Amino acid sequence: MRESMPDKIILSHGDGGALTRELFRSTFQKHLGNPFLSEADDSAILPLGTGQEICFTTDSFVIDPLFFPGGDIGKLSVYGTLNDLWVSGAKPLCLSCGFIIEEGLAMATLEKIVRSMADAASSSGVSIVAGDTKVVPRGKGDKVYINTSGIGILQPERRMDRKAYPGDRVLVSGTLAEHGLVIMALRAGLEPGELVSDCGPVGSAVDNLFASGREVHMMRDPTRGGLATVLKEVAEASACNITLYESEIPLKEEARQLLDLLGLDPLYLPCEGRVVAFAAPGPLPDGWIDIGEVGSGDGTVLLKTRYGGHRRLGFLEGMPLPRIC
Amino acid sequence: MRESMPDKIILSHGDGGALTRELFRSTFQKHLGNPFLSEADDSAILPLGTGQEICFTTDSFVIDPLFFPGGDIGKLSVYGTLNDLWVSGAKPLCLSCGFIIEEGLAMATLEKIVRSMADAASSSGVSIVAGDTKVVPRGKGDKVYINTSGIGILQPERRMDRKAYPGDRVLVSGTLAEHGLVIMALRAGLEPGELVSDCGPVGSAVDNLFASGREVHMMRDPTRGGLATVLKEVAEASACNITLYESEIPLKEEARQLLDLLGLDPLYLPCEGRVVAFAAPGPLPDGWIDIGEVGSGDGTVLLKTRYGGHRRLGFLEGMPLPRIC
Repeated sequence: MRESMPDKIILSHGDGGALTRELFRSTFQKHLGNPFLSEADDSAILPLGTGQEICFTTDSFVIDPLFFPGGDIGKLSVYGTLNDLWVSGAKPLCLSCGFIIEEGLAMATLEKIVRSMADAASSSGVSIVAGDTKVVPRGKGDKVYINTSGIGILQPERRMDRKAYPGDRVLVSGTLAEHGLVIMALRAGLEPGELVSDCGPVGSAVDNLFASGREVHMMRDPTRGGLATVLKEVAEASACNITLYESEIPLKEEARQLLDLLGLDPLYLPCEGRVVAFAAPGPLPDGWIDIGEVGSGDGTVLLKTRYGGHRRLGFLEGMPLPRIC
Repeated sequence: MRESMPDKIILSHGDGGALTRELFRSTFQKHLGNPFLSEADDSAILPLGTGQEICFTTDSFVIDPLFFPGGDIGKLSVYGTLNDLWVSGAKPLCLSCGFIIEEGLAMATLEKIVRSMADAASSSGVSIVAGDTKVVPRGKGDKVYINTSGIGILQPERRMDRKAYPGDRVLVSGTLAEHGLVIMALRAGLEPGELVSDCGPVGSAVDNLFASGREVHMMRDPTRGGLATVLKEVAEASACNITLYESEIPLKEEARQLLDLLGLDPLYLPCEGRVVAFAAPGPLPDGWIDIGEVGSGDGTVLLKTRYGGHRRLGFLEGMPLPRIC
């Protein structure tokens, strides 16, 4: 543990940024370390001995509020885990769900959430095959927390190197920052207006990318920590540099206005229905945007600003975004 | 929803008994229902299309206190999920873990728990391959909650019918009630003395049972709800009756004393390292005890008492056992 590591858990340990990474290394990787457990991948890939490989991933959802424009904790918990499987090149096979419910939750609220999970799962052709429910006393939880874990079958033609290479382009599958922005606006008591969370499936965006015939080296979904944190993780893990063009970053007009109002940086806000991909040059697939490039280097991420300047991007740090997913 | 179903979640919805079952049916099965999701099995069995089948299971752990004689939440969370795989006839392949940590948890406490998970996993030859950490503000959790999900490979020679048959014997792999009793004693401010939780792996007990050559039709681990609830579930799901002999129920002497003191019924207290099996007659495997029999019937579970009387056993109901695992 380096000197700066606090001796108690603080909220930033859960923000997906620098401290989350530090906690992973100092505690989880230290004791649980194995070749499959990685801080930089969305799922583990495991050989079954039959030639087939499965992807396995887990996420807990503690979002506040439970319901928001564009989704709710139920939809989020299903797509959050399915998206991790899709960006790993897998076809989702099934999900589990574990509920931790605070005493006093209205049955109608729980049912609404479960129905929303059912809709998301069935519209993706996936079943929730295992579940568990625990109840904790009032004041020992907050309405409901949901863990989902998912298994997918790795598609051999979608096997990726899981690292970026110099010469790769950086592509995103849609406009950014909307999930985080909607949640932060609600928390600030602001009306997000037309803006809704991007919470949703990335399956068809991933299909489009592979259909374009481009050689895809890596995909991630920029959730906690946002695009900048993912780029920094990939740059470090791949030992290369990444240059991002501010003018190419896709943002909805409504998002720009709210960002200004709240003083938030869209590069660090989570998406819940977008993919960032690192792929060799080629035709741009439907719906994707080219926002930057990978070069040789040592893990630096540079933003080329609209005005010709440069800004170095690090891991999310010091931006208070608790319970955003 | 039947008339008696409360309109808010109460603690008993999480006790593994009658209300947990009701909640499963009225909410989870209603919306998520599929052939794999079952209230009476410890895991889902899924074909992979290659002839191989996998088992998939999930559990969240919210136990209070975190540390107890014989174990802690880390050890419990690993064996809890591995045991579900073993009793399903699977060889565990890997685990995931999802942490929900309350702000303010001492880093040393977290590390102790993670180390305990690492010990349990590695002594079972299993890796924790995927993880997730969320942090919730003070007062929105209680130190730490852990979800583990697990994948196992179904052993073809251990494929069971997953139902009991008239003529089967009811076997248990060791003394009962110790986990629940230790936790309840601690909560009551009593010293559990020599008694420790049975929290541990059931892998070798299951190996012994299969090595005996007996035809095993079903196994369960009697956790929340205890032995009686498992028997009632199996009797109803298998449409048969079960008779249990009180004189054969294995209890440690220290357990009997604490049970008397606390006024608790051992048949409803959870074990965290025991198996109950339904198997055709045959030689008694090492360490197993024969406690009853399956007959034809309609789902009744009868306890033949020491004094020749009968007591009908139902699902756990009205016994306040929150956060016991």
